[in-house]
Amino acid sequence: MTCIISPMFEFQITAKNNRARTGIFTTPHGDLLTPVFAPVGTQATVKTLTPEHLKDINATLVLGNTYHLYLRPGDELVRDMGGLHNFMGWHRPLLTDSGGFQVFSLAQTRKIDDDGVTFKSHIDGTMHRFTPEKSIAIQENLGADIIMAFDECSDPNNHKYTKLAMDRTHRWAERCLKAKTRDDQALFGIIQGGVQADLRAESAKFIASLDTPGIAIGGLSVGETKDEMHAMLDVMYPLLPENKPRYLMGVGTPEDLINGVLRGIDIFDCVLPTRLARHHSAFVQEGRLNLMNASFARNEHPIDETCDCYTCQTFTRGYIRHLIVAKELLAGTLISIHNLRALIRLMESIRSYIADGSFESRAPELLKQWHGNAERKLVHG
Amino acid sequence: MTCIISPMFEFQITAKNNRARTGIFTTPHGDLLTPVFAPVGTQATVKTLTPEHLKDINATLVLGNTYHLYLRPGDELVRDMGGLHNFMGWHRPLLTDSGGFQVFSLAQTRKIDDDGVTFKSHIDGTMHRFTPEKSIAIQENLGADIIMAFDECSDPNNHKYTKLAMDRTHRWAERCLKAKTRDDQALFGIIQGGVQADLRAESAKFIASLDTPGIAIGGLSVGETKDEMHAMLDVMYPLLPENKPRYLMGVGTPEDLINGVLRGIDIFDCVLPTRLARHHSAFVQEGRLNLMNASFARNEHPIDETCDCYTCQTFTRGYIRHLIVAKELLAGTLISIHNLRALIRLMESIRSYIADGSFESRAPELLKQWHGNAERKLVHG
Repeated sequence: MTCIISPMFEFQITAKNNRARTGIFTTPHGDLLTPVFAPVGTQATVKTLTPEHLKDINATLVLGNTYHLYLRPGDELVRDMGGLHNFMGWHRPLLTDSGGFQVFSLAQTRKIDDDGVTFKSHIDGTMHRFTPEKSIAIQENLGADIIMAFDECSDPNNHKYTKLAMDRTHRWAERCLKAKTRDDQALFGIIQGGVQADLRAESAKFIASLDTPGIAIGGLSVGETKDEMHAMLDVMYPLLPENKPRYLMGVGTPEDLINGVLRGIDIFDCVLPTRLARHHSAFVQEGRLNLMNASFARNEHPIDETCDCYTCQTFTRGYIRHLIVAKELLAGTLISIHNLRALIRLMESIRSYIADGSFESRAPELLKQWHGNAERKLVHG
Repeated sequence: MTCIISPMFEFQITAKNNRARTGIFTTPHGDLLTPVFAPVGTQATVKTLTPEHLKDINATLVLGNTYHLYLRPGDELVRDMGGLHNFMGWHRPLLTDSGGFQVFSLAQTRKIDDDGVTFKSHIDGTMHRFTPEKSIAIQENLGADIIMAFDECSDPNNHKYTKLAMDRTHRWAERCLKAKTRDDQALFGIIQGGVQADLRAESAKFIASLDTPGIAIGGLSVGETKDEMHAMLDVMYPLLPENKPRYLMGVGTPEDLINGVLRGIDIFDCVLPTRLARHHSAFVQEGRLNLMNASFARNEHPIDETCDCYTCQTFTRGYIRHLIVAKELLAGTLISIHNLRALIRLMESIRSYIADGSFESRAPELLKQWHGNAERKLVHG
């Protein structure tokens, strides 16, 4: 089934395994094989890695943060330098968020009203204002292939406020759609509604009703339990159109990816693999390795014997531990390469399992293998 | 002319241009085309770069620091992990210094006597002792292709003490030769003598008389003027055997390389290109660029239009300036790639000019091109 979801974007579902599916999401900068995991390049760089490293680990989609890039170096500068792809030397697909999440989490928010948000920069304390129209204008200057509607991500447990924020997010999504001028960018609306099943259902229906080429799910992975996250995904699933890619924002761990795909998610992003790497922690199937541990000093094995990444093909745990102890920045680079490759390789496996029809039956075993990498309670398929 | 300078090493001079020459220095880990510039990998890594980056810029020889590797992770650990080549994933030639220079410059030296040096680690304050025999034992554990005799680098302007340190260095060189057991390592003696012409001549004669496959020149690039450095090179030149490679330690800038080759030097190393890179400074022919400068914010040119490195082929000055301002570590990586490539490319040009006989006549123009990169007064050819 191929769906022309907008003039320059197509989404073709190539295999299904109950709710899980593989697809090809065609964008102006190339095809994404879904489900896909996107490394995060907040400030126009995936921290400590070159675009060449990212190509080597078969990364296809990279995320940039609108809030950060607006503040520094400025979206107009990026536009004048040929757009974010040219600026950062990444010529495969890019996705930008709307800035909403960071305005509410990083900046000092000064005033939220129905028109927009006034906030204070976390960098220099200057005052700024984002509206739906402004977020789209910034994202059009940046020029990513996939862009997000401006949204408000509220405290997920306060039903009354969550409803207010959700309603505002819906009105903002309509304004974003109207403000958008470029047809080489796919705008996704964002479902909110916290962990309230009624609000999630209402938001899913509303966002699904908009004429957008994709659907994002926001406000999860912000402190709720895994049970709550999965319950919300289950509530939304039947309300989402089959023919549009679904993006679960800010998720996650290896288990989150498996659990998300099981619930019909196509796109993921998360800072976790690179953030953990800079804190010496590596994804392996037995659990996370803290490579600073003295027990690794003379360890002649790679981080993961089964991994095909440059780091695992070239260096021992003992060498990486030495780099960490000696405060050599290369440690962060090498572990980032491994951690990102681990998630991208997991997605490659998942795609092949969906293609051969074995994903659902393999999922419990996969979840068991990656147990120990969860930050919170694991919930199996 | 091919000289078998020891069972596992050969040095073949392939072209000469007055004192400048090209050669092939055969080592157990491959051939070095000389003159050659070696990036410094103090702690078993060239800071912020992978071995893959080093191969991409055509680095052939890398230097490791015995003092640092002895203290951390320890030379016995490196030996047990398969030697420094395997440990750091660099399978081309390696050179280690003797630890002498760092013991006198970095550690708190507690006692120098004719037998050796007792010093306090700059890392944890523990007490250690290096002797010529200990330096060789450490370097045999590390396993570099080219190793150095233990030497004392003294205040270059004090004739009396410089003579004492030089005499000690000579006795230590003899002890190093005697202590050496591996025939897959080429031990170089080190000429000292400060900026005293009589001592330099005496030291050159003595070190040249030893049965070593190469000659190192220490104690220059430590605070003397360029005129003094060149005067010393001129004093030593006629006393050095034609058939052994000559290594000028810790040098240098683009001009230093040109001036050194003009005076018969074959091997150079220096931390400058990578250290400058981490301080945002890039080698270009017009002078050094401080890439943090606000004037580069919207600059769409690469660091150097003529450079073939990954950084210059991929990124603008504006992007690199953004990385610096945003405190992204990738800036150091990208500028290190460029700065090292600039020196390695300069050496490639010099080799081709020596081969076609044009180096001496081109040298004044080359020195003029690289003017502005000197730290001290420039001296032309």
